[in-house]
Amino acid sequence: MTHRTIPDIVIGRLPQYLRSLQRMENENRLITSSQELAERLGISAAQIRKDLSLFGEFGKQGTGYDIHFLIEKLRAILKVDRVWDIVVVGAGDIGSALARYQGFTNRGFRVTMLFDKDPSKIGMKIGNFIVQDIQFLSQAVEQAGIKIGMIAVPSAEAQAVANQLIKGGVRAILNYAPISINVPPYVRVQYIDPVIHLQRMTYYLD
Amino acid sequence: MTHRTIPDIVIGRLPQYLRSLQRMENENRLITSSQELAERLGISAAQIRKDLSLFGEFGKQGTGYDIHFLIEKLRAILKVDRVWDIVVVGAGDIGSALARYQGFTNRGFRVTMLFDKDPSKIGMKIGNFIVQDIQFLSQAVEQAGIKIGMIAVPSAEAQAVANQLIKGGVRAILNYAPISINVPPYVRVQYIDPVIHLQRMTYYLD
Repeated sequence: MTHRTIPDIVIGRLPQYLRSLQRMENENRLITSSQELAERLGISAAQIRKDLSLFGEFGKQGTGYDIHFLIEKLRAILKVDRVWDIVVVGAGDIGSALARYQGFTNRGFRVTMLFDKDPSKIGMKIGNFIVQDIQFLSQAVEQAGIKIGMIAVPSAEAQAVANQLIKGGVRAILNYAPISINVPPYVRVQYIDPVIHLQRMTYYLD
Repeated sequence: MTHRTIPDIVIGRLPQYLRSLQRMENENRLITSSQELAERLGISAAQIRKDLSLFGEFGKQGTGYDIHFLIEKLRAILKVDRVWDIVVVGAGDIGSALARYQGFTNRGFRVTMLFDKDPSKIGMKIGNFIVQDIQFLSQAVEQAGIKIGMIAVPSAEAQAVANQLIKGGVRAILNYAPISINVPPYVRVQYIDPVIHLQRMTYYLD
């Protein structure tokens, strides 16, 4: 079972399964089915069974999935059975929202550093963080061994920030700037761009 | 050419093509190729040609795509050759970021209303908006004929807000709360949850 054997599109669905299962666990549920997951997620039950079967035998025919067991398996597969430190670059609205975001807890992540280039922001406290000077970004990231960065700077600055992050050893970037960034093949990038999601829905509106 | 004939996964890629093309146009470029788009997007050139061919003949063999022409076609297909009004619910960090977000301009959207239930926020000015009282949400949305809502409230309140939006006529929801919401089949939902994107990348980290 190497990376090559599992399509990235399948990997992209696993976090959605995990989120639904964790919600069920919070509701004190013990067992679920591919049908129930399908209804919650809008993905077919057959697809869900097929995706999960790529990683082993997680459910028994007729008895469904043990929610806790499947959560533990998915956390291990996605490597979020640990806590990853994250650096946030950009202390504007979005960066501040990320620095204060409650949704990382128990899901494998925590923000540990916040950077900006604006002298009026450097030294300010946002959430639990003192905004640090972006000129020390690569070196701070490297010293802390941080592998994940979130970019929340204006589009024109996103590529330069990505370069600094990668120089410091970051290998996964979540980019909030509405612009594509170029990275070497050993770095992964995901984008948060609300317009991409909105445009996908307007197609269906009258 | 009905909705049934185009898979949603293809529709989901069109906004990415549009974003790349608009960026090229901003660089004063006139012509591109499926190869260049492929490199910028990390999607295969064959896939891009196949996706676009579902909507007609947009490029000539050997001469590539006319960037301006393809932009206009994609804007029409995605129905963003007009401006859609958006209501934002939740005036916390994320809602404030959305109210001030510059990335909607020229991409088919504008925020026109911002709501919250917190009496200390109602009446406050955020960006260009006065925060309105959530108890008037459905009625304000209905009167304005708004079809798109963005939810930026705590998870526990997201479903109730979705219900109010739908009651007011909203048919497309972008949900920033890290929770799945249930909607009738005639309503579309997309999720912005940074953890889903992060977990998709940690799979590949060592």
